[in-house]
Amino acid sequence: MDIRFGVIGSGSWATALTKILTDNRQPVGWYIRKEASIRHIQARHHNPHYLPSVYFDTNLLTLSDKPADIVDASDCLVMAVPSAYTAATLEGLDRKALRGKKILSAIKGILPEQNLLLNEYLAREFDFPLADYYTVMGPCHAEEVAAEKLSYLTFSGENETSTQQLASYFTTDYLNTIINQDVYGVQYAAILKNIYALGAGIAHGLEYGDNFLSVLIANCADEMAGFLRKVGIRNIAVGVHEGEDPVSHRRRANYAASVYLGDLLVTCYSLYSRNRTFGNMIGKGYSVKTAQLELNMVAEGYNASKCIYLINKDIKAEMPIAGMIYHILWENVKAGSGFKQIESYLV
Amino acid sequence: MDIRFGVIGSGSWATALTKILTDNRQPVGWYIRKEASIRHIQARHHNPHYLPSVYFDTNLLTLSDKPADIVDASDCLVMAVPSAYTAATLEGLDRKALRGKKILSAIKGILPEQNLLLNEYLAREFDFPLADYYTVMGPCHAEEVAAEKLSYLTFSGENETSTQQLASYFTTDYLNTIINQDVYGVQYAAILKNIYALGAGIAHGLEYGDNFLSVLIANCADEMAGFLRKVGIRNIAVGVHEGEDPVSHRRRANYAASVYLGDLLVTCYSLYSRNRTFGNMIGKGYSVKTAQLELNMVAEGYNASKCIYLINKDIKAEMPIAGMIYHILWENVKAGSGFKQIESYLV
Repeated sequence: MDIRFGVIGSGSWATALTKILTDNRQPVGWYIRKEASIRHIQARHHNPHYLPSVYFDTNLLTLSDKPADIVDASDCLVMAVPSAYTAATLEGLDRKALRGKKILSAIKGILPEQNLLLNEYLAREFDFPLADYYTVMGPCHAEEVAAEKLSYLTFSGENETSTQQLASYFTTDYLNTIINQDVYGVQYAAILKNIYALGAGIAHGLEYGDNFLSVLIANCADEMAGFLRKVGIRNIAVGVHEGEDPVSHRRRANYAASVYLGDLLVTCYSLYSRNRTFGNMIGKGYSVKTAQLELNMVAEGYNASKCIYLINKDIKAEMPIAGMIYHILWENVKAGSGFKQIESYLV
Repeated sequence: MDIRFGVIGSGSWATALTKILTDNRQPVGWYIRKEASIRHIQARHHNPHYLPSVYFDTNLLTLSDKPADIVDASDCLVMAVPSAYTAATLEGLDRKALRGKKILSAIKGILPEQNLLLNEYLAREFDFPLADYYTVMGPCHAEEVAAEKLSYLTFSGENETSTQQLASYFTTDYLNTIINQDVYGVQYAAILKNIYALGAGIAHGLEYGDNFLSVLIANCADEMAGFLRKVGIRNIAVGVHEGEDPVSHRRRANYAASVYLGDLLVTCYSLYSRNRTFGNMIGKGYSVKTAQLELNMVAEGYNASKCIYLINKDIKAEMPIAGMIYHILWENVKAGSGFKQIESYLV
């Protein structure tokens, strides 16, 4: 019983995921916003804007610039648009349009206007059940997938068997898949790592060295684990079933695994990430506005720092590092004096 | 009541530690093997071979090429010779020579011929008590100390108060000190990280990418924590005092802290480390012998892999990564096929 996949989005990560599926000979419906890109892919067999070295067997692709077309024709929607555009992309759909389908989220971020994870947004707008919601996360530069360098992706879902089944469509000789059940944790980890990568950039801009960077990132890993543990415990309180041991359930998440620590490392140590570049300018004394104008983009860690700051009012994890990055970015605390305080927290 | 320090060793790390002490206006006895280096330091105020940019106030230094001179005149010996030469350096000393003194070990390795940690060797050869033994560990490129880039060092000892007192002599505006009681764990962490850094080098030589590297290092962090937890539990079984709770004792070690995870990160992500360079050649298919001849040195991770392999026969931690690196380096397993197996362990 095959799943009909529909990929929503045409950036580098959407393109990489489509490559993986089609390398497994899966037919894919693909929503691409720009008609010109669709024509280019049909004529020239590759996405002109992202991962242009990846060539597709177009017999496997059904392209459309209308989300509803792809949604209707799919059993599983792979959501791979930037979090800031997700709501707008789904806007025209009927409230019942997603009924009976699976959603696989590849969105590494929070919907900024709503301050919601995608599953929370889908529940609110489409009555979409968590049982049909899955995520694909992990340390994965799309460029390395394009080059078929071995990478690891973690699929998360409430039900192990169906998560495993979904993951199997993405397993290739250059892609190992892992599954877990920590749907909330993996999404928050993907958001948090952008904040910490931006912080690593600030530290670099302030001319701290490699010794300090390693201390900072180790402490970020610890802070992240503390937050995720609290999120996990909260979800267990809601989601644990009669007779299940909440502690053993919680223990299942190993925060030194690829989808948590691995993703933090690849992002913080990537010299060319937006978060790092943006943070570097902040560390050098530029204002947020100037950094945005200069780089002509918003680093994901910027919005994420505010989202997590607000969410943590409820979660109440100890987050002196992420908290201070928020204060630096949103409340005009000077990077230098903010990091002086961070220095004193580190162990 | 001041402590008279004696630094044993004249490499870059010994030179950095001497700088830290003399920056705090501490007089330092300094054992340096080569008389020519002593004359150079006296005449030109810097070590000609290591960190030559660091200038010393020679009024604070008492230099000698005889270890016994420095040992006799010191209350606390800072051991900073390579682990392979430690036994030879201490050889001429009387069995009672260290009585009543403190030893602060800055040696990041195991004594290879004896396969012992320094404290174990000192106990055997000098009846030296663990209560007077301290370590200074953490992610610390000596070059960044020379440049006065903020770094963090962790001092470990059985007694918190005296460990704190010792650490205070090393606290400067560019050096934050942390203390813990995990004397065994910090030493093993320093050894393990060299094995994993060598493994990161092999992965690079085999042309794995950054995605894989982050997955590998995250799993190394987990494997290290598993080993250290077992070491901690074993020491608690021996060392825990009546009425003390072994679990809360064990919990004190946070393996995401700088001295554990931080040191692993700075070593694995350092492009210019010996372990990385050596591993890279192994990954590219050179034999251990060729790599050693070509690089004219032995990477610390090479001996460490065998030491830990032997020690783990007793500790019995799950170490598929460190174990396979041992098999590759010492038992002629091909790097490529060894890493194929490692791939399957990673999560």
